[in-house]
Amino acid sequence: MSGSGEDCRDGVRWLSDAEQASWRAILRGTRLLEQALDDALGDAGLQLSEYEIISMLSESPNHRLRMSELAAMVVQSRSRLTHTAKRLEDRGWVIREQCADDRRGVELVLTDGGLEAVRTIAQVHVQSVRDNLVDIMTPEQFTAIGDAMGIVRDHLDPQAISGR
Amino acid sequence: MSGSGEDCRDGVRWLSDAEQASWRAILRGTRLLEQALDDALGDAGLQLSEYEIISMLSESPNHRLRMSELAAMVVQSRSRLTHTAKRLEDRGWVIREQCADDRRGVELVLTDGGLEAVRTIAQVHVQSVRDNLVDIMTPEQFTAIGDAMGIVRDHLDPQAISGR
Repeated sequence: MSGSGEDCRDGVRWLSDAEQASWRAILRGTRLLEQALDDALGDAGLQLSEYEIISMLSESPNHRLRMSELAAMVVQSRSRLTHTAKRLEDRGWVIREQCADDRRGVELVLTDGGLEAVRTIAQVHVQSVRDNLVDIMTPEQFTAIGDAMGIVRDHLDPQAISGR
Repeated sequence: MSGSGEDCRDGVRWLSDAEQASWRAILRGTRLLEQALDDALGDAGLQLSEYEIISMLSESPNHRLRMSELAAMVVQSRSRLTHTAKRLEDRGWVIREQCADDRRGVELVLTDGGLEAVRTIAQVHVQSVRDNLVDIMTPEQFTAIGDAMGIVRDHLDPQAISGR
């Protein structure tokens, strides 16, 4: 592939060498980051996807959220969220309740034990986010990723179902 | 949390409101992007993790890579890679072979059918990378994410096991 200009063969706008290098760095960097955050939480016996759920609940009014809303916020399929919620329920950190205003809806509610767990584990999590992302680059670089990935989020979720 | 300056309670350097907003955008943006790329490949009956493997093989000398090397390149656990490789094998796109120079090592080899599949599916994939990432921001923004995530990658994989 040519390193300069647009490479357009067969009617396909291929990535230039520089674009390809950026794209690979994004893909590998985000995968390695997710793995590192998972590993840090692993010492507390938790996965990142589990932590995200109890963290979202801890910030919600009355510490509760509809399963459908929660699935959109953490960008998990409903079936994956159901499995994750089951594991958190087994630990006594959340309970499932029928929605008061909708008999078909189910809400996830954080327990007192769950709230205490979030508060302890948040310290581990924020430290690993700092160590592997925020503190290894300039504040301008970190803000630039946030702004650019905010464009991606707004493009793919224009109704802000996943929250802002 | 305060929106300005560093919030340091209990000896923990919490994220400021602005940092928290950036971090959420990064987390949700990357998840939504991965989902969108998966959906685009779904029409070809393929997952992103599967496409990445045949794509890496297509760029390697003799279209072959050791399983251990490949696992590092696509940042997948060995057990997950074994499952993914099995699915690709069932489609006739890859075969597993013993390494010539190491009886305990296993290599994954792309078949002619697999190579043809990569060539066709690459067109779909590059279009979705453009539509949901490259073309919705300025070239400077895209380069900035690549540079910053390159720092994360180099920090977490200093020996460049995952390639560059």
